[in-house]
Amino acid sequence: MNSFTSITPMLERQAIELPSWAFGNSGTRFRVFGTPGTPRTPQEKIADAAQVHKHTGLAPTVALHIPWDKVDDYAALRSFANEHGVDLGTINSNTFQDEEYKFGSLAASDPAVRRRAIDHHRECIEIMHQTGSRDLKIWLADGTNYPGQDDIRRRQDNLADSLVAIYAELGDEQRLVLEYKFFEPAFYHTDVPDWGTSYVQVSALGEKALVCLDTGHHAPGTNIEFIVAQLLRLGKLGSFDFNSRFYADDDLIVGAADPFQLFRIMAEVIRGGGMDADSPVAFMLDQCHNVEAKIPGQIRSVLNVQEMTARALLIDRDALELAQFEKDVLGANAVYMDAFYTDVRPALSEWRASRGLPADPMEAFATSGYQEGIAAQRVGGTQAGWGA
Amino acid sequence: MNSFTSITPMLERQAIELPSWAFGNSGTRFRVFGTPGTPRTPQEKIADAAQVHKHTGLAPTVALHIPWDKVDDYAALRSFANEHGVDLGTINSNTFQDEEYKFGSLAASDPAVRRRAIDHHRECIEIMHQTGSRDLKIWLADGTNYPGQDDIRRRQDNLADSLVAIYAELGDEQRLVLEYKFFEPAFYHTDVPDWGTSYVQVSALGEKALVCLDTGHHAPGTNIEFIVAQLLRLGKLGSFDFNSRFYADDDLIVGAADPFQLFRIMAEVIRGGGMDADSPVAFMLDQCHNVEAKIPGQIRSVLNVQEMTARALLIDRDALELAQFEKDVLGANAVYMDAFYTDVRPALSEWRASRGLPADPMEAFATSGYQEGIAAQRVGGTQAGWGA
Amino acid sequence: MNSFTSITPMLERQAIELPSWAFGNSGTRFRVFGTPGTPRTPQEKIADAAQVHKHTGLAPTVALHIPWDKVDDYAALRSFANEHGVDLGTINSNTFQDEEYKFGSLAASDPAVRRRAIDHHRECIEIMHQTGSRDLKIWLADGTNYPGQDDIRRRQDNLADSLVAIYAELGDEQRLVLEYKFFEPAFYHTDVPDWGTSYVQVSALGEKALVCLDTGHHAPGTNIEFIVAQLLRLGKLGSFDFNSRFYADDDLIVGAADPFQLFRIMAEVIRGGGMDADSPVAFMLDQCHNVEAKIPGQIRSVLNVQEMTARALLIDRDALELAQFEKDVLGANAVYMDAFYTDVRPALSEWRASRGLPADPMEAFATSGYQEGIAAQRVGGTQAGWGA
Amino acid sequence: MNSFTSITPMLERQAIELPSWAFGNSGTRFRVFGTPGTPRTPQEKIADAAQVHKHTGLAPTVALHIPWDKVDDYAALRSFANEHGVDLGTINSNTFQDEEYKFGSLAASDPAVRRRAIDHHRECIEIMHQTGSRDLKIWLADGTNYPGQDDIRRRQDNLADSLVAIYAELGDEQRLVLEYKFFEPAFYHTDVPDWGTSYVQVSALGEKALVCLDTGHHAPGTNIEFIVAQLLRLGKLGSFDFNSRFYADDDLIVGAADPFQLFRIMAEVIRGGGMDADSPVAFMLDQCHNVEAKIPGQIRSVLNVQEMTARALLIDRDALELAQFEKDVLGANAVYMDAFYTDVRPALSEWRASRGLPADPMEAFATSGYQEGIAAQRVGGTQAGWGA
Repeated sequence: MNSFTSITPMLERQAIELPSWAFGNSGTRFRVFGTPGTPRTPQEKIADAAQVHKHTGLAPTVALHIPWDKVDDYAALRSFANEHGVDLGTINSNTFQDEEYKFGSLAASDPAVRRRAIDHHRECIEIMHQTGSRDLKIWLADGTNYPGQDDIRRRQDNLADSLVAIYAELGDEQRLVLEYKFFEPAFYHTDVPDWGTSYVQVSALGEKALVCLDTGHHAPGTNIEFIVAQLLRLGKLGSFDFNSRFYADDDLIVGAADPFQLFRIMAEVIRGGGMDADSPVAFMLDQCHNVEAKIPGQIRSVLNVQEMTARALLIDRDALELAQFEKDVLGANAVYMDAFYTDVRPALSEWRASRGLPADPMEAFATSGYQEGIAAQRVGGTQAGWGA
Repeated sequence: MNSFTSITPMLERQAIELPSWAFGNSGTRFRVFGTPGTPRTPQEKIADAAQVHKHTGLAPTVALHIPWDKVDDYAALRSFANEHGVDLGTINSNTFQDEEYKFGSLAASDPAVRRRAIDHHRECIEIMHQTGSRDLKIWLADGTNYPGQDDIRRRQDNLADSLVAIYAELGDEQRLVLEYKFFEPAFYHTDVPDWGTSYVQVSALGEKALVCLDTGHHAPGTNIEFIVAQLLRLGKLGSFDFNSRFYADDDLIVGAADPFQLFRIMAEVIRGGGMDADSPVAFMLDQCHNVEAKIPGQIRSVLNVQEMTARALLIDRDALELAQFEKDVLGANAVYMDAFYTDVRPALSEWRASRGLPADPMEAFATSGYQEGIAAQRVGGTQAGWGA
Repeated sequence: MNSFTSITPMLERQAIELPSWAFGNSGTRFRVFGTPGTPRTPQEKIADAAQVHKHTGLAPTVALHIPWDKVDDYAALRSFANEHGVDLGTINSNTFQDEEYKFGSLAASDPAVRRRAIDHHRECIEIMHQTGSRDLKIWLADGTNYPGQDDIRRRQDNLADSLVAIYAELGDEQRLVLEYKFFEPAFYHTDVPDWGTSYVQVSALGEKALVCLDTGHHAPGTNIEFIVAQLLRLGKLGSFDFNSRFYADDDLIVGAADPFQLFRIMAEVIRGGGMDADSPVAFMLDQCHNVEAKIPGQIRSVLNVQEMTARALLIDRDALELAQFEKDVLGANAVYMDAFYTDVRPALSEWRASRGLPADPMEAFATSGYQEGIAAQRVGGTQAGWGA
Repeated sequence: MNSFTSITPMLERQAIELPSWAFGNSGTRFRVFGTPGTPRTPQEKIADAAQVHKHTGLAPTVALHIPWDKVDDYAALRSFANEHGVDLGTINSNTFQDEEYKFGSLAASDPAVRRRAIDHHRECIEIMHQTGSRDLKIWLADGTNYPGQDDIRRRQDNLADSLVAIYAELGDEQRLVLEYKFFEPAFYHTDVPDWGTSYVQVSALGEKALVCLDTGHHAPGTNIEFIVAQLLRLGKLGSFDFNSRFYADDDLIVGAADPFQLFRIMAEVIRGGGMDADSPVAFMLDQCHNVEAKIPGQIRSVLNVQEMTARALLIDRDALELAQFEKDVLGANAVYMDAFYTDVRPALSEWRASRGLPADPMEAFATSGYQEGIAAQRVGGTQAGWGA
């Protein structure tokens, strides 16, 4: 197995973007539970996100969701973020909460609706110029609930046309990442349900369009690390939305449901060059904290990614390859599992401390008084959620 | 195959209860879209439900959800219903929308929360006495999102204790039906996730406690008609919540996703005596209309049940049994499929007309002007949804 | 709804290829049950397949599996087929039953194994020249059972190289179709697990390489008709392997598990031009008859495809499109379902009879004495199965 | 977290039974690959199994499969086993490989077939008296492939009757454990598909009948540790068949696909008293080694169980309960995960060595020369597989 020292250079450049919406309230269709201290403004969300970076050194950027994070002055918001030690990141569009999007957005049959959705993305790109963001992330709720409700094929063509219009607006340094999702909120068919669809759509656009892989958006039994390997091979893996799930798109803390799966995913990322210095792959969380504390939930999440990355980096690639070529099934698997079963937490704590970070970020935040402070200060107003 | 005439006696006594909440707005965690004419009160929901019965003769009762359908005077509500040609049915409790229920209700670890939830069911039983309802339906959102979050075993014991307390309050003619659900809104573990759990819990209570089977609440690949057959065999199938789904608990129109599955379910219901005159099995819809029209959605649903019941009744049981005993796999399957593939719609239309009902209930409602009327009249106020 | 008369031209050109192996014994890993009359030679399989065409007019060609159907003289085999009223069709390669393929074939890490597998495909192409076959179908059992067992990424590159070598051997009129499969017999990762992988692999080859879609090879909950629509849109749907399944790759009679799904698939095939005169889409069965009679099982299967095609052709596309544009969810769904619920069997029987075919092919075969004849004649020898 | 020293008493009494058939060849319906040294007789299987115990101290008994392990003199076989340092364990019946069982066995519609299957179990009980076995394990392949093929309800009654007949033959110290399986080899319906069915069937028999839980036999997304907790609560968990799977019943090495799931299962076993001194729960492997080495595969498997048991024993139950009662979701989860993430392998090695066992059993076996010995000696004869 590799030594811990040998893997720290790669760990050092690890960066995981946080979603601003993880700090607002979220829940299920049955109920959204609120908590004291929940942010009421984009600024408060960014301040909370900055806490995660402060204690972990892992989360230097915050993704925004438009219109949830709309402000009058994005330059000022960026300055605010910088003052808190973080920067603004990916801009996420939203075409699922207006009355007009009831039957779809970029893929909708109604041209007026498509235009509206395209214009929204234009606005997002405009914001990107102000925030200095590289990535425009598109996740679509588009789809239908009943067979026959709309024409699957026509919608796919509509989507292609809409994406061309959006892609044309991108600046030279900007990218478009298209996320796919197996199901929900559409129940019969989804217009971008799988990596294949996202791949063919972005491939038709050009080099600045890539696939976004959300770890919770696959059919049961799907081998996600295979998709990671394939997209890296094709040069089309643009970004990750990390989370985990037991059954559906549960948006749980990444690594919570199946730590070994996260390990396998990170192993393929590393194998495919996804953590190389020039890698095009962006790493981001996309989670919802329904019953657990939000800021600690995000700290736990980036630590989970870090710990599994460290374990994956420990894999002795030479020994693995040797066993593979010898067709030693148990031997190859043992090399692989040895890295997974190694407890990297003590070494990570030490390393963290050596870099001036808390050895135990969860503890550091818990005892910082920050949570108590915001609970006391953020009284009145409307807590941020998915609708605001 | 049986003649249509031979099956009308059973069709005649078919009754499918409607859920009051199907007439209010519903949606996903991403968005709830409203529609003109949506009821604002329990009375308006009942009036809408009465339209379904008026045009189909299939839906003589309406289930209430407490507290969504709370009124000051339930006797008056019942009279209101009767004047509209329907009666009140099952009372559904709700222990998932109060702040207190964030970590569970009847199964929660906190005894104060359990008491609150038990008291809520006492209140429901009190309402049942006033509404003349037979069934108290309990569906629990109880569960956890993370391994270790709570003690699975202790919660099961808590649940058993809570149910004993509720069961003790039931009147002689009243019943408790316990619904199970595979997942959601809890994502790691659900306290009543499968028929086995519901069965062992109600069996511990006594004869007046039975299982409620919601057709959308199973793991992928589950053979639901097997569960129907098993529960009928055990004398513990109390009621159905009909709906359909492609992947998760999508609450689509019953029969929309897999008509053949509905046929197989009805075939086992009939086979097991579930449609006999003295059958304990209650039939109910439990659906959410997110993008489709609500009243027509309910009409379509009860018609789907009627049509599949008719097809299932057409199965030539003697021919089927003969082929089964001869181990003629294709022959037995052919007898079964022959009934499924038979188009019963013309015969049902005629039969409906002969009983003074519209031959085409969808058309009859569409041309009745009712929808336009409520859209014009129900202006202002708050449209009913899952929260009100 | 369209009239039956209007759809007969398309029905008339429908052709469904039969797999020779459907007439041999098959089963599960637990047991393969034999039956009297099972063919012992490729000739006997073809003779049985010819019975299906004789009684249905739907199955003019028979696919061969190499080496299961190896003969010394393929020209003679073709003549034999022609004398029996059918022709030879797709050649299926087999790279999963030799000791050498234990760890893969075209994707294997061992170059000697890959060479062997490529050579086998060369041999298949050679046979295609003799049989006059257009299509070489490649389904790979390649994959691994344990994480780490082999390198996913390298195997994908190996596969690409191997396919290039095979593609180079194809004649001008020949095609290669690459089948994907979600899982089995590899349990951890499969080298061609989804349509996306098959698509990127065949796209890298050229115009004569296309995707083969086996209806049983998807994750639970997958919307297969969406994939059909997408591949037709991309011009890369080469062929279908029809069968059905309840959970895994059960290889049941097509339409047996979910007739409505088959309807939806055929509706998208028609919508996307897959049944047009110049369509590149080939239709084939790929089924295993474990407990049911084989020849009647194949007759039932092609009839199921025909019946669902007829229903799908009946869809009133103008009415459907109108309802779709009006966003009339229930109306559009009703147009769609109306076609599905229509019993086309009487019209098909009549039409069949009018063309000199048996009105009831199942009955016609059952009373033909053929089964009794082969049971009496085919005594001794080794019944054909997956291994011979 | 608990200290390692505090958990060794429980580890010391851990015993995992090995299946004799794990040492024979196994595979998929596509191919069974053989390996040099594979046993040809029950004696050779037992000798191989004894190697696992010799190197791990974890596997003192070997389960037999009848008729695969039929011998003339079971007392002699037992002596043979004892001489090799192990004992005989559970007797597994087989009612899926005779021609007569094509349409079922204990649940079949044909009374002659049921009698035959009952008689087979009588024979197994007779063997149990000679081998000194406590448990008769029944796994049934019974089910159907097509809707309508047979009567689900009648078969359930048949099964109940058959089990009564078998149960009546059990000696006072003998038990019957009934295994359930979600699907395969029956594809439409399985007669014992879920824990609920197994539970109701064994509950109808009496105290000596219990449920066998095979970890690979559930629908996707099923929370298996919930079932463990429930069955322990009901006093009806009789035994485990350990293995793992990614999608279907893949029979991979236990812990290979999802180590965290194995941890959660063991945590509930411990929580529910399943490892207490008087626990009725028997632990057994049920795996198939298709591509990996067999004896090392079994060593790896029992070590996986031991390692996950150790991790689960390390859970600080007091801290966990405290966090649970404080509704500290992340805190409780952290206590739980802390145990999972702890690397117990060094402590286990040391402890093993302190008890006179190899610190590294995999290494010890690899260097023992045993494998080379049997490969050289076991030449000729028929290698054991599922059929012999």
